[in-house]
Amino acid sequence: MTNKPRQPGVTEMAAPKLARKELVELLRAEFPEMFHAKSGYDVEEVWHGGCRVRRHYSERSVRPGGTLSGPTMMALADFTMYVAVLSAIGWVPLAVTTNLTINFLKKPAARALIAEARLLKLGKRLAVGQVDIRSEGDDDLVAHVTSTYSIPPQTL
Amino acid sequence: MTNKPRQPGVTEMAAPKLARKELVELLRAEFPEMFHAKSGYDVEEVWHGGCRVRRHYSERSVRPGGTLSGPTMMALADFTMYVAVLSAIGWVPLAVTTNLTINFLKKPAARALIAEARLLKLGKRLAVGQVDIRSEGDDDLVAHVTSTYSIPPQTL
Amino acid sequence: MTNKPRQPGVTEMAAPKLARKELVELLRAEFPEMFHAKSGYDVEEVWHGGCRVRRHYSERSVRPGGTLSGPTMMALADFTMYVAVLSAIGWVPLAVTTNLTINFLKKPAARALIAEARLLKLGKRLAVGQVDIRSEGDDDLVAHVTSTYSIPPQTL
Amino acid sequence: MTNKPRQPGVTEMAAPKLARKELVELLRAEFPEMFHAKSGYDVEEVWHGGCRVRRHYSERSVRPGGTLSGPTMMALADFTMYVAVLSAIGWVPLAVTTNLTINFLKKPAARALIAEARLLKLGKRLAVGQVDIRSEGDDDLVAHVTSTYSIPPQTL
Repeated sequence: MTNKPRQPGVTEMAAPKLARKELVELLRAEFPEMFHAKSGYDVEEVWHGGCRVRRHYSERSVRPGGTLSGPTMMALADFTMYVAVLSAIGWVPLAVTTNLTINFLKKPAARALIAEARLLKLGKRLAVGQVDIRSEGDDDLVAHVTSTYSIPPQTL
Repeated sequence: MTNKPRQPGVTEMAAPKLARKELVELLRAEFPEMFHAKSGYDVEEVWHGGCRVRRHYSERSVRPGGTLSGPTMMALADFTMYVAVLSAIGWVPLAVTTNLTINFLKKPAARALIAEARLLKLGKRLAVGQVDIRSEGDDDLVAHVTSTYSIPPQTL
Repeated sequence: MTNKPRQPGVTEMAAPKLARKELVELLRAEFPEMFHAKSGYDVEEVWHGGCRVRRHYSERSVRPGGTLSGPTMMALADFTMYVAVLSAIGWVPLAVTTNLTINFLKKPAARALIAEARLLKLGKRLAVGQVDIRSEGDDDLVAHVTSTYSIPPQTL
Repeated sequence: MTNKPRQPGVTEMAAPKLARKELVELLRAEFPEMFHAKSGYDVEEVWHGGCRVRRHYSERSVRPGGTLSGPTMMALADFTMYVAVLSAIGWVPLAVTTNLTINFLKKPAARALIAEARLLKLGKRLAVGQVDIRSEGDDDLVAHVTSTYSIPPQTL
């Protein structure tokens, strides 16, 4: 009853506009307060139109009942979608979220979260994507997200 | 940039609670005004937690510019999701939609629409699913839907 | 626990780009198969950035349990949103839905439905709005909708 | 083109299940890592089925281009919805988000954010609400949210 996670190491995906290493360096420089070595985000893989991001488990995000907070997962989904958009259009940091819908499906485990994003549509001004979030090591979906990003006009 | 459609004829999916033939007969009897031989809906395949429905092309649904109307696709997504829910819980016709989010991604062709639904979560009271809609013969998504259905308490 | 309906007859709203009478004539001419005297839609009032539409009660839309079908309400919301967009930008019939989220809140009565739309944002290319649907004569919300419309570039 | 903010000090709203002062104390005790004097959240007013929360401006949430991050607003919406749910059902801290849809409408100012939530439906197991987010001092909507919360069974 799940969307199967993409098998790591499969190389049929097209190369992204920005290689993972370069993208991570640009993100760290542009968003020092949001993405840095201690943030818990790890961009594991990037391909054209998609990516996989791991968010380390953190006691700070735990809610009563042992679940992880909704906002933790919303922020992860938004960040992963952002990386997926950049993977297809290159370094356009002013791309912004216009809308996001998240469905929480299953209580996550006390482990890292793995988010996988793929673009469903890429236009000149809008990109629409889907993000699947799972607990590390588990095939079941913890949350399912669809989101739209606005791409600002780019002067060449 | 798409969710690949399920390959017809692949038999790894579990058997549904209701076989396709029986389900179609029950739908025709219960919803004479909505689902009958002339409605344009054809339930092509049903498995446990999912199904595929074909909606015949109809001049009546065409909008200016040659596209198909949004409500045509919303109704198709809602029906397909309904069938997916019944495929997992059996004949519970009073299951109703509690919410639905649809993203229109690409203008559909002047051809039949194929909707494929799969449940992402099945609880005692709620089922959450995803529906992908494509133009027949095309891999690109025309619309992407997530929806929640409410399952009424069933007395045994 | 509801969004209060707009009081009819209050005249503080700005005049729409198209008067109601002219808009209805244009709609009937452009969408003969969708909006005509027998369709059940009645555009009651139009103001700049909003409108109110009444959908007549119809036995055809009734579902088991006496409720009205989800697609009936989705189509009403989409149409009402469309009219709200046109009320603000004038006659641009190629404006199309890009996304819609509907929450079904309460089982509707066996009466007419009243949908009230208001734009939350109007940009050059996108309009975002909210549609509240009630059963005629009842203050409680039957459904709540947010939707985004895409406005095609207009050559002058 | 906006939903008018509720006028502070108007007393026609019914009293909440928990008074604001008591609710804030319970929140601080239960969620020390999330809601405390330095968190930036200030529950300004609580009534039955709704509330208003102010989120202080923080340099940490600023994104390139001067806007505030999407996740900042998603977290604010989720927290405000949570308080609205508790306002109607009392202290049930295990109520959790099942889904949330957010539309970003306008770039927020470099000022505090004001979120106002109201429940649209309150059932035994689910609550559906709407949250309007504005920049302090501005009537225009910055973001519009609808969300569903799940209410766990409560043993008496």
